[in-house]
Amino acid sequence: MFEQLGLIGCGLIGGSFALALKRARLVRRVVGYSKSPSTTERARQLGVIDVEAPSALLAVSGADLVLVAVPVSASEATFRAIRHGLSPHAMLMDVGSTKCDVIAAAERGLHNHFSQYVPAHPIAGKEVAGVEHAEADLFQHRKVILTPVEGTRPALAQKAEQLWRKIGAQVLTMTPEAHDAAFAAVSHLPHLLAFAFVNAMQAQPDGKRYLELAGPGFRDFTRIAGGDPTVWRDILLANNEEVLRQSQLFRNTLLQMEAMISNGDAAALDESIGAARNARRQWPSAGRANSAKH
Amino acid sequence: MFEQLGLIGCGLIGGSFALALKRARLVRRVVGYSKSPSTTERARQLGVIDVEAPSALLAVSGADLVLVAVPVSASEATFRAIRHGLSPHAMLMDVGSTKCDVIAAAERGLHNHFSQYVPAHPIAGKEVAGVEHAEADLFQHRKVILTPVEGTRPALAQKAEQLWRKIGAQVLTMTPEAHDAAFAAVSHLPHLLAFAFVNAMQAQPDGKRYLELAGPGFRDFTRIAGGDPTVWRDILLANNEEVLRQSQLFRNTLLQMEAMISNGDAAALDESIGAARNARRQWPSAGRANSAKH
Repeated sequence: MFEQLGLIGCGLIGGSFALALKRARLVRRVVGYSKSPSTTERARQLGVIDVEAPSALLAVSGADLVLVAVPVSASEATFRAIRHGLSPHAMLMDVGSTKCDVIAAAERGLHNHFSQYVPAHPIAGKEVAGVEHAEADLFQHRKVILTPVEGTRPALAQKAEQLWRKIGAQVLTMTPEAHDAAFAAVSHLPHLLAFAFVNAMQAQPDGKRYLELAGPGFRDFTRIAGGDPTVWRDILLANNEEVLRQSQLFRNTLLQMEAMISNGDAAALDESIGAARNARRQWPSAGRANSAKH
Repeated sequence: MFEQLGLIGCGLIGGSFALALKRARLVRRVVGYSKSPSTTERARQLGVIDVEAPSALLAVSGADLVLVAVPVSASEATFRAIRHGLSPHAMLMDVGSTKCDVIAAAERGLHNHFSQYVPAHPIAGKEVAGVEHAEADLFQHRKVILTPVEGTRPALAQKAEQLWRKIGAQVLTMTPEAHDAAFAAVSHLPHLLAFAFVNAMQAQPDGKRYLELAGPGFRDFTRIAGGDPTVWRDILLANNEEVLRQSQLFRNTLLQMEAMISNGDAAALDESIGAARNARRQWPSAGRANSAKH
């Protein structure tokens, strides 16, 4: 049980974390701060937080648990802003989609408080953003990746793991480097490809007319192209090396498949598509979500 | 009202066409043929067809309407097989996802019957294939593209249009070239990219472990990689020029975005992602299907 959660960033993820802790009776009081005062006010009106703080520094004062749920690029400024208000016994976590850069920001921003910081990435989200859509269930049966480093207090890493488990999440522990490499492959690259695909379509003289013919395959393939530009710009830049490495691997495979098409090599193409199909169908979470056409 | 539909290929699309015509009382009798006798038998047991024909030739004998619903690569052989049984007054259609190559196959295969052929592409499908999943509603509110050419009897093109309208479809008429260019962009390329993406992931030493971390964004992005290898091999080869052209346009855009990441050009990347996001959100069929995260 925590006495007070200091929540920096009262959006979908931060708000859901607060609600989940409240419902599980894991926290007595939530003090919240968002950059936009109207968001903080809305969070209080919705019962997501109990008290509005006028600054990030005041939101963490007296807190034994702090969650930083801000865009990745705002991490360092946030760490600097709260450092002098942080109790030496408080546990601090973030929720960023990239880990190496946020850990580096924490080292620079938190100084001697760095050991209190447990880097976290909940794999949760919704089609919509904002505190209005926060819900106590958001982390139920979802994965949360923790990436503690040498400087992290082991007791806090354990405590963080227990906390996420208590609100229904499945906790995995990885190194920050392994995390960033994996998410470049399974999340950041597909976003980049979806953005590039839509832009390449739009850049064509007939692109707009083509779009009118697009069906459900196109809809699903490009759904992630609707993501927030600032969030995704930050992620792609923060994880640039791994993203560029994955993009190159992808382009090599694409060129190989183009060569099969160009050479009319039906057997190789059949094998290649079959391998992709099998891998996709064997994917643990695939369920029945495979389309026969379009 | 047609007297007799000769259905070659009693799968999801062919079977749904037969059911839709029956329900709308547009056909008196359906004679069906599939390469696999058990499929033809199953179609009869399910009431999709009324009579099993032992060959494609016999399925079209006496038919005033013929639908060829076979994989694109089987088109020419099918046309050749039915030519001598085709009544000179029958209307013939296909349902292929590519049009230029099927039209060429029809010219070679149908000879003097070519004018009876109206090339068609219903943009309909389901997550599952097979006659068990055929349904009379499949074409309701779905687009059907007709691509009649100079040699097509104009009266038959009109008749085809009316027929598809009567079973609930929205009919568009295009040239075969415009059709193939558009579908290379909105359907064939995304399939190629999804296949290449899954294969590039699989080829990595840690690919299988990465897949365990993948979430809903990955699920939607790769759904179309579960498509039938034979079908997609045929489509990519049949429409190879347009597919390769689209793939190159895509690679150029991807390289531009990679350069923005590589140069740390946040402003350009923000603008590029924003353009993709706006295009995706303005897409007529987008609905609310946009994800904020992952």
